[in-house]
Amino acid sequence: MTSENLELMQRHRCFGGQVEFYRHWSSTCNTTMRFSIFRPPQAERGKVPVLYWLSGLTCTEENFMVKASAQRYAAAHGILLVVPDTSPRGLNLPGEDDDYDFGSGAGFYLNATQSPWSAHYRMYDYVVEELPGVIADAFPADTRRAGVFGHSMGGHGALIVALRNPDRYRSVSALAPICAPSLVPWGKKAFSAYLGREESAWREYDAHHLVQSTASRLPMLVDQGTADQYISEQLMPWELERTCREVGYPLTLRLQAGYDHSYYFVDTFMRDHVAYHASALGAGAASWVVD
Amino acid sequence: MTSENLELMQRHRCFGGQVEFYRHWSSTCNTTMRFSIFRPPQAERGKVPVLYWLSGLTCTEENFMVKASAQRYAAAHGILLVVPDTSPRGLNLPGEDDDYDFGSGAGFYLNATQSPWSAHYRMYDYVVEELPGVIADAFPADTRRAGVFGHSMGGHGALIVALRNPDRYRSVSALAPICAPSLVPWGKKAFSAYLGREESAWREYDAHHLVQSTASRLPMLVDQGTADQYISEQLMPWELERTCREVGYPLTLRLQAGYDHSYYFVDTFMRDHVAYHASALGAGAASWVVD
Repeated sequence: MTSENLELMQRHRCFGGQVEFYRHWSSTCNTTMRFSIFRPPQAERGKVPVLYWLSGLTCTEENFMVKASAQRYAAAHGILLVVPDTSPRGLNLPGEDDDYDFGSGAGFYLNATQSPWSAHYRMYDYVVEELPGVIADAFPADTRRAGVFGHSMGGHGALIVALRNPDRYRSVSALAPICAPSLVPWGKKAFSAYLGREESAWREYDAHHLVQSTASRLPMLVDQGTADQYISEQLMPWELERTCREVGYPLTLRLQAGYDHSYYFVDTFMRDHVAYHASALGAGAASWVVD
Repeated sequence: MTSENLELMQRHRCFGGQVEFYRHWSSTCNTTMRFSIFRPPQAERGKVPVLYWLSGLTCTEENFMVKASAQRYAAAHGILLVVPDTSPRGLNLPGEDDDYDFGSGAGFYLNATQSPWSAHYRMYDYVVEELPGVIADAFPADTRRAGVFGHSMGGHGALIVALRNPDRYRSVSALAPICAPSLVPWGKKAFSAYLGREESAWREYDAHHLVQSTASRLPMLVDQGTADQYISEQLMPWELERTCREVGYPLTLRLQAGYDHSYYFVDTFMRDHVAYHASALGAGAASWVVD
């Protein structure tokens, strides 16, 4: 968890700040892991709040930095963005690279308990414990002011890490998250292989269950496109909405007419989400550094 | 050139409008060509100005739509974006797919005169003549109000089509354009194969020559990162600046400290460029449709 172990792979000036790509030895995943950051211009003068983005199936630490233009809004508000890869990679585990929705690119932000995955696929601990330690150690981040958001599988990840750690995250939001992974094909496939067939073990990684058991009342903002091709089979926002209503959990679910599951949807609402976190994290109001 | 010949491949809601991908039979290129558009929400109520983006080496009609978030600004101003592919593809010409900087993905926005390229590689006529006809026919575009911009090879393309057709474009800008292709490795390789070894034929596709011969005084806005890895060997903005100064051509060359050649640079200045064209095209001032 020391910065000596960080290797800078790429650096690009962007919106007055810097996009940087790193790799490092992860003791949690017992392999080399990669992440990207955006360092806003305000970070040259002191510590700034930090906002973690968790990506969806097949993504690396690069997709979000390339596609979402979140850097514009993070630069405007003065927020450090941190984007981990979505799984360990290159481990030569059987079946690791066979499917887009399991193994490489599909870590599901959980700690696997089943062999052979349990030795490396520990993305929950990596995202919640190890990576924030790396960030605190090596970057100008005020880690007491941390938020988390994500898309699809990463929306699921954002919701579960926030629901289970209300002391670690001050804000949470998601775009088209997998809301009830225990009930859908993507989740059943991943959970049964990573966690075993005993479904009781799945609940601690399922947002629509966690809202029933958590003491947290951290508000959740969720955007969901109505033309999303996965909405009924894989995402099930209605299940999250129903359980939130039952237990009085504060959820704002916004249905966005005509939007699908792509980054064209993510891009469209990125400004909203960064502004939402900026407000909760006590970051500055938007002041455009590039005009 | 009729809309019956257009085949819609993809459509995505984005920033209150639509990103759409098409393919069509091009009589100019004598093969199927592809392009993408962004249809801003204002286009539901009438014709809007049109802004052509010409992409750089290796790009298709998709990269810009995925990476640049220009849709946000085009939606704000009410501008139709049109993004052609960078070359014909899949023709089985010898060497067509061998190099990143020649053949597929590297049409250089010229009309080839040399066999075998001359039968298909006619991107200049495609961009200047055929594609605007398709757009006028099938989309709510006020084609009298047209601008053009681009990046790298596409910045070169934007400058040359505007310099040669002041009656067709009301605004032009470029990000890190190849300013003097006759003098640099990328340009020499492409021009000698597409146009032959007689360098006099190269001048009509070289911005730093064209500013000397054109009667146009359409102002050019060029942004160039100072940390661009290609600036000295391939781009040579100084040559364009020098010839513009010699003949009194109105060029605004902005050197952006620390920026490289990537889309992180393009993204950063996209808002500026769309606003620049919006002003020249008489589009609306920015009014955010998604807030």
